[in-house]
Amino acid sequence: SRPSRLDPAVAAGLRRTPDGLVVAVVRQYDTGEVLMVAWMDDEALHRTLTTGRATYWSRSRGEYWVKGETSGNHQYVHSVALDCDGDALLLEVDQVGPACHTGRRTCFHTELPVTGVAGDKRKARS
Amino acid sequence: SRPSRLDPAVAAGLRRTPDGLVVAVVRQYDTGEVLMVAWMDDEALHRTLTTGRATYWSRSRGEYWVKGETSGNHQYVHSVALDCDGDALLLEVDQVGPACHTGRRTCFHTELPVTGVAGDKRKARS
Repeated sequence: SRPSRLDPAVAAGLRRTPDGLVVAVVRQYDTGEVLMVAWMDDEALHRTLTTGRATYWSRSRGEYWVKGETSGNHQYVHSVALDCDGDALLLEVDQVGPACHTGRRTCFHTELPVTGVAGDKRKARS
Repeated sequence: SRPSRLDPAVAAGLRRTPDGLVVAVVRQYDTGEVLMVAWMDDEALHRTLTTGRATYWSRSRGEYWVKGETSGNHQYVHSVALDCDGDALLLEVDQVGPACHTGRRTCFHTELPVTGVAGDKRKARS
C-alpha cells in the first residue's frame, strides 16, 4: 500500500478493499443531492480531511486527483463521516458546477426499470 | 461469476470490481437521507429490480441477503439509477425502521475531523 500520513486512530477504523480503498459517497451539503461516488485510500482521506478539498484515488489512472483541479468544479468539504463497518465514507460538500464529467449536475442519470412492486401500500409513488 | 437473470442490456452497462460487484448507495426516498452502502452483483440487482425489495451480496458471508428479511427493517425500492461510469447505483427506498445493524437510523455515525478549510468564503458553516 501507498505511504500515508493519515491519523493512525482514523486509519485503524477503516476496512479496505483488497486494493486498499474505501468508497466515498458525495452529497451536496444543503440540498442532500447525491452527486457521485469515488474512491479513497488512506492518503486521499488524509488530504481531504486536512485540506478541505475532496481528494480521491483514481483506480483507472493510478493517481490522486483533487476534484475540480482541472475542471474548476471544486468540492469544498463540510463534513466526513465513516460508516459502521468502516468501508464507506459520506462526504458533505459544496459542489461548484456539475459533479459529473458529462456536464450533468450528478453522475446518477441512468434510471433502471423497477418492475417489482413490494409492499404496495407503503410504496405509493407520488 | 455467479449466474444471473439480469437483463443483458442492463448488465452491459455495469463496470464491476474484480469480484464482480457494484456499489449501491441507499437513501430514503423522501428525506434524501443517506442510509447505508452495500454491494450488488448482477443477480442481486436483478432481484432488486424485479421484486422491489433491496437485495445485496454479502462479501463477508458470500451470500445474497434481502434487507429486512431477518430484522424486519425492510427497504421498499422506489427507484434505481446507475452512474455515468457504471460502477455505482443509487437506490431510493422507503426504509422501515433503522437501516443500521446498530439500531441507528443510518450507518454513517462516526464523524471524522475536517481540519482544513478550503475556499473560506464559500464554506461558511451554518
